[in-house]
Amino acid sequence: MAVNLFSPAADDLKPVSGVRLGVAKANIRKPDRKDLLIIAFGHDATVSGVFTKNRFCAAPVQICREHLEQTRKDNLPVRALLVNTGNANAGTGERGYEDAMSTCMMLAALLSCKAEQVMPFSTGVILEPLPVDRIIAGMPFAMDDLDENNWLNAAEAIMTTDTLPKAASRTVQIDGKTITITGMSKGAGMIKPNMATMLGFMATDAKVPQDLLDVMLKKAADASFNCITVDGDTSTNDSFVLIASGAVDVGIKNAQSSALAVLQDAITSLAQELAQKIVRDGEGATKFMTITVDGGASVEDCRTIAYSVAHSPLVKTAFYASDPNLGRILAAIGYADIEDLDVSQLNLYLDDVWVAKDGGRNPDYREEDGQRVMQQSEITIRISLAHGDATATVWTCDFSHDYVSINADYRS
Amino acid sequence: MAVNLFSPAADDLKPVSGVRLGVAKANIRKPDRKDLLIIAFGHDATVSGVFTKNRFCAAPVQICREHLEQTRKDNLPVRALLVNTGNANAGTGERGYEDAMSTCMMLAALLSCKAEQVMPFSTGVILEPLPVDRIIAGMPFAMDDLDENNWLNAAEAIMTTDTLPKAASRTVQIDGKTITITGMSKGAGMIKPNMATMLGFMATDAKVPQDLLDVMLKKAADASFNCITVDGDTSTNDSFVLIASGAVDVGIKNAQSSALAVLQDAITSLAQELAQKIVRDGEGATKFMTITVDGGASVEDCRTIAYSVAHSPLVKTAFYASDPNLGRILAAIGYADIEDLDVSQLNLYLDDVWVAKDGGRNPDYREEDGQRVMQQSEITIRISLAHGDATATVWTCDFSHDYVSINADYRS
Repeated sequence: MAVNLFSPAADDLKPVSGVRLGVAKANIRKPDRKDLLIIAFGHDATVSGVFTKNRFCAAPVQICREHLEQTRKDNLPVRALLVNTGNANAGTGERGYEDAMSTCMMLAALLSCKAEQVMPFSTGVILEPLPVDRIIAGMPFAMDDLDENNWLNAAEAIMTTDTLPKAASRTVQIDGKTITITGMSKGAGMIKPNMATMLGFMATDAKVPQDLLDVMLKKAADASFNCITVDGDTSTNDSFVLIASGAVDVGIKNAQSSALAVLQDAITSLAQELAQKIVRDGEGATKFMTITVDGGASVEDCRTIAYSVAHSPLVKTAFYASDPNLGRILAAIGYADIEDLDVSQLNLYLDDVWVAKDGGRNPDYREEDGQRVMQQSEITIRISLAHGDATATVWTCDFSHDYVSINADYRS
Repeated sequence: MAVNLFSPAADDLKPVSGVRLGVAKANIRKPDRKDLLIIAFGHDATVSGVFTKNRFCAAPVQICREHLEQTRKDNLPVRALLVNTGNANAGTGERGYEDAMSTCMMLAALLSCKAEQVMPFSTGVILEPLPVDRIIAGMPFAMDDLDENNWLNAAEAIMTTDTLPKAASRTVQIDGKTITITGMSKGAGMIKPNMATMLGFMATDAKVPQDLLDVMLKKAADASFNCITVDGDTSTNDSFVLIASGAVDVGIKNAQSSALAVLQDAITSLAQELAQKIVRDGEGATKFMTITVDGGASVEDCRTIAYSVAHSPLVKTAFYASDPNLGRILAAIGYADIEDLDVSQLNLYLDDVWVAKDGGRNPDYREEDGQRVMQQSEITIRISLAHGDATATVWTCDFSHDYVSINADYRS
């Protein structure tokens, strides 16, 4: 069902010097399935992370935040990420916290570092205890598998209801040196990231000081994973991590470094591709929709309207049906409840088709034109407010029978 | 598909002295369908209305507001409501306004009153011009049909995707006099009323001064139509109107009148029944869910959490599947983004089953107990916050394959 989403080939994914990935089948939820991933890197790496704003955040998210803070305080590098699928370790209370800490301690022992230098990630079913023994038993196998050239296996190991692995690479030339960025993401349902998506991991071999990496990650997240929604459900486990291995020094010293802007563009571009892959693989998705709101009083207003349209089950089912029942979009704009919004100046376009003009049906709009666009697999909805200069874009997908089937059957 | 919803018999619906209803088949969207309704009443009636907060509100909603204001300014009674189905007259711009005004003027001519004494209501497809000629042509037939004993026909005439007419009566004894209240509602999709539902009309024969009727309506709406959601889509046309015909004087003079409290209880109770009927007939609904949040810091917080759970497509599909995948409820509570919410003190109950205790899985919870409750057609989800004394309740339904089918096929 994925919309124009294709699995990358193993050699599409460029290794990132200094970043090794190892995968194992740990039987966490289902047998004979890659479900455990270790990403390990050297002492020169800097790591930034952003996490879900869901107040019911999972134990691993809480520990990630603590470990990031602690390692900075202690001036120790983060050495590894530990990822499991099949179980989210969320809604598991104090025991969930202890379980996640146990896995960090074990991996730290294998890496000869402290537990705080390991960041744990879990994704899967909520409210069930983490099978710690199986995770620990799987770790040596994942350690044995560590390899810089292992991104495709890793992308497969983090899949849950995803139908395809999601990963991509970029290379940029800076001062005659080649910088590589490779990343992967997972997620198909419970997707309305608020700070980061289900899981997204990116690595570059560039050397980037910690404070600049933090800003770089935040900018990339705001322009990518924070602009997508499948079903409006912000997960308990959303995490997006950027690793700079430090293998290649291109002179990024401060915010004024010219190399920084080049790297930022490539990082953001890759993050957008990975974020959009999640939407393309949205549970039951048959259409990929770009919702752009311009002429708003603020970016926040534009985002609110775009999300209101993107979350409307009525809009999403109309797109599924290729039915240009576009009044549903107007209704969703209206209930976004934007202060002082003058709907009599609003214009609505479906790709190149001008549907609503000055708040009413465009007299020149013909249903067959709307119908033509609705039948495409990629559609841009543009809402023009004549209310200011701000703009925002959100990517989403439609709502199909398969969404219901997938989510009514997920645990079985 | 409706959940424990049954059509009333004609004689279940008590006539309200002074309030006559007339129905016609005006071919507004489909042939041979009751689609036009006139509710007419005498000079002694007081009328209150609350309307959608959707900024893309329909032309008739705008006119209702204006006419209510104008008649009060001119000290003229509202004389009639004019309702059509099949076309919402929303997203229709200036022309939509003129179209709705034309229909008011014609009915005013038939009733020998001013246009401002007529309140227009439309429900149906958005963004298509109102077929004014057919509505005007149907009016004489609806006028001929005017009768106090005509509520069931009227309830049928306001149906769109509703599978059954929704109407009920209450009688209360006040000072030895019998007061009757009868009402009807319609709606099944695009339901997340903000101020009032799709359409709700209630009438009582009690004499109630205008200012007291306004308060009574607001109280009833806040405890009924403003507590339901099917899909989170706030309609462009939501309207809820209460008519007090003035036929029976039970001494309601001011806010201290003892009769007022008795009448308020009956009005609120009927409004709740009518609101719940909309949820029971929610598009594709197979389960009726009551979501109660207690122990909150404020009613607003409780409502925010209840709606967050009620709108989660993942929660709704899990209920459809009778799958106690209850971690999805915790996730939805978490992303409701309540300030200072301590999830480690949160408890979750499914009817009598204690599912989550102190923010984690209740050690005594057994999956088969959750399963047993999930298979019921009526389920109460109770979320206990230990955060304060406030409480709120929201009624909603599940999300099924039929919701998608109904909304993917609605216009065809």
